[in-house]
Amino acid sequence: MTLHWTAAAQDGAARAGTLHTAHGEVETPVFMPVGTAGTVKAMTADAVRSTGARMVLGNTYHLMLRPTAERIARLGGLHKFMDWHGPILTDSGGYQVMSLNELRKLDEDGVTFRSHVDGSKHRLTPERSIEIQHLLGADVTMCFDECTPFPATEEVAAASMRLSMRWAARSRAAFQPREGHGLFGIVQGSVYPSLRAESVAALTAIGFEGYAVGGLAVGEGQEAMFACLDVTTPLLPQDRPRYLMGVGTPADIVGAVARGIDMFDCVIPTRSGRTARAYTSRGQLNLRNARHADDGSALDPNCGCPTCTRHSRAYLNHLFKAEEMLGPMLLTWHNIHYYQTLTRRLRGAILDGRFAQVAAEMAAEWAPEDTP
Amino acid sequence: MTLHWTAAAQDGAARAGTLHTAHGEVETPVFMPVGTAGTVKAMTADAVRSTGARMVLGNTYHLMLRPTAERIARLGGLHKFMDWHGPILTDSGGYQVMSLNELRKLDEDGVTFRSHVDGSKHRLTPERSIEIQHLLGADVTMCFDECTPFPATEEVAAASMRLSMRWAARSRAAFQPREGHGLFGIVQGSVYPSLRAESVAALTAIGFEGYAVGGLAVGEGQEAMFACLDVTTPLLPQDRPRYLMGVGTPADIVGAVARGIDMFDCVIPTRSGRTARAYTSRGQLNLRNARHADDGSALDPNCGCPTCTRHSRAYLNHLFKAEEMLGPMLLTWHNIHYYQTLTRRLRGAILDGRFAQVAAEMAAEWAPEDTP
Repeated sequence: MTLHWTAAAQDGAARAGTLHTAHGEVETPVFMPVGTAGTVKAMTADAVRSTGARMVLGNTYHLMLRPTAERIARLGGLHKFMDWHGPILTDSGGYQVMSLNELRKLDEDGVTFRSHVDGSKHRLTPERSIEIQHLLGADVTMCFDECTPFPATEEVAAASMRLSMRWAARSRAAFQPREGHGLFGIVQGSVYPSLRAESVAALTAIGFEGYAVGGLAVGEGQEAMFACLDVTTPLLPQDRPRYLMGVGTPADIVGAVARGIDMFDCVIPTRSGRTARAYTSRGQLNLRNARHADDGSALDPNCGCPTCTRHSRAYLNHLFKAEEMLGPMLLTWHNIHYYQTLTRRLRGAILDGRFAQVAAEMAAEWAPEDTP
Repeated sequence: MTLHWTAAAQDGAARAGTLHTAHGEVETPVFMPVGTAGTVKAMTADAVRSTGARMVLGNTYHLMLRPTAERIARLGGLHKFMDWHGPILTDSGGYQVMSLNELRKLDEDGVTFRSHVDGSKHRLTPERSIEIQHLLGADVTMCFDECTPFPATEEVAAASMRLSMRWAARSRAAFQPREGHGLFGIVQGSVYPSLRAESVAALTAIGFEGYAVGGLAVGEGQEAMFACLDVTTPLLPQDRPRYLMGVGTPADIVGAVARGIDMFDCVIPTRSGRTARAYTSRGQLNLRNARHADDGSALDPNCGCPTCTRHSRAYLNHLFKAEEMLGPMLLTWHNIHYYQTLTRRLRGAILDGRFAQVAAEMAAEWAPEDTP
């Protein structure tokens, strides 16, 4: 059987379920830490697992350039390479390639671009992206698409979306079905409801193991993002997992789960961890702030991660001031742990039929402790 | 009872024993990872412990400047601050202050210097150094001394050593004896046997819980260092622990244990770990070397650390090329693990009466795998 998702409970539009993959089962809603270049930055794979994370993301663009997909395949695949034995979702490379701007050239067949590492020339097509993800050994492979720039006129957004739909059909044809593996289509159409509906119709006509909502978290703001989900997720098949790409803050995730999303990935917890920003049950903190220098209390008194149970805010403040690597290490660990706790709590609330109440409680707890 | 050392076995001049401290017992020979600024760089305290390390070093100079000894004391001491619950040895600040060169001014009473962090003016005297180490909560406190520059004429070395001996007496007077805590004297005298003997006589007349050999590993070379130990360690009290400061490579440690040294600290395993240099049972490797890019084998097949049991040389090579933090993290972990395995193996050899044989075996195994 290919990769599939089974429902456990629904509360309003919010869903709890299980994703069944070649590398084990994953409870949803799930947050996938980003392991761009074969590592969740500043964490060992063991540490990632200890946070409760069960699925991570790898980036086709970064890995195809270095160390190359062929090398990873020769070495036994991405799971073995990075010592991650749970499922891995790989993106298609489309998003990163589009953001290269002057360094890339798009045509009907694919994209030619220059590497940010050494300037060398490369080409991605739907077929090549699917091949790379196959070489990496992805449990979830993503269709190669054009991430529509924001803002875009309806005309531009329509042309971009329709290209992505043609690429989705080519991605589907190139994908080799295997036990526990699956291919996800990506809904595009910018902020235009009719384009989103057209995109969903095109993708469901092809048929995928899961559906992602793409082209969001690109500057449109939370309100526009939620509005887009409101018109998109009701159109998606009920029995397939839904993945909101590149999202987001804790509040974004709660709002998206409320609208029927099951899967998330985002660099926020890892990137913030490296820049001294913590996400906690009481809101956000900047650990570089001098007011933490003499504070012997835990970063988050409600958190059971090693950073919170073993160290003080004063220690974290010291590590960031002294530019010690342990600062980013401990704070990334905490942030990932916090995101896992968040999605687990949302899942529990859905199973208990208390989703709206728990979501409201969380929002009330997030009175930001300090300003950025 | 103050901090003390008990012998378990002797093989030639090499000794196995136990250091009894306020924070537990430590088997010797012991290698202490360096935790300069309240962290063994790139490692959590848990990871340090998992290597077998039982005692770490903290730096008075770095900690007095940032976050300050008074702040660490207010927060409950250095053990709690850095989550290290085994014994801690602190240096006196003398070595770091002396290496500031133009930024410091020496007089009979002490040293005035400018901070490398912000240029602010500070002063260290024997009394202040002992007070700082007390505030940090050190199990082993080191006398404040002048680390004699190398090379030095016999006249310069004599004057420097005699100043250190006067400071040693003041350090002893300033130190407050406490259960499980102790003060170590530091033998100086550069490469001059008569000065080393005079220094030992001065220190043993004062009386310390342990004796360090200082002023070595400053450019004199391994032969001169061993020659100095040959004339120094036989003069030291048999019933006290002996500590060779800032040493060294695996071969340095084996040679020093052969000459009766019990304790070591050095930045080599941590600093090398951050610059892609590995110490293994088969010698040294540079993980940036392109020949590792396709090598799926373990860094050190004889090593049980997580880096060697879970990852390949190819992965480490990739991490360093991609400048991922996990590279320094994994390689520091391995190097510290290797140093712990080395000292444990030396201890076992001493207990078995096979020290010379094991030392010879090690040297034969260290055929360097590749050049720097």
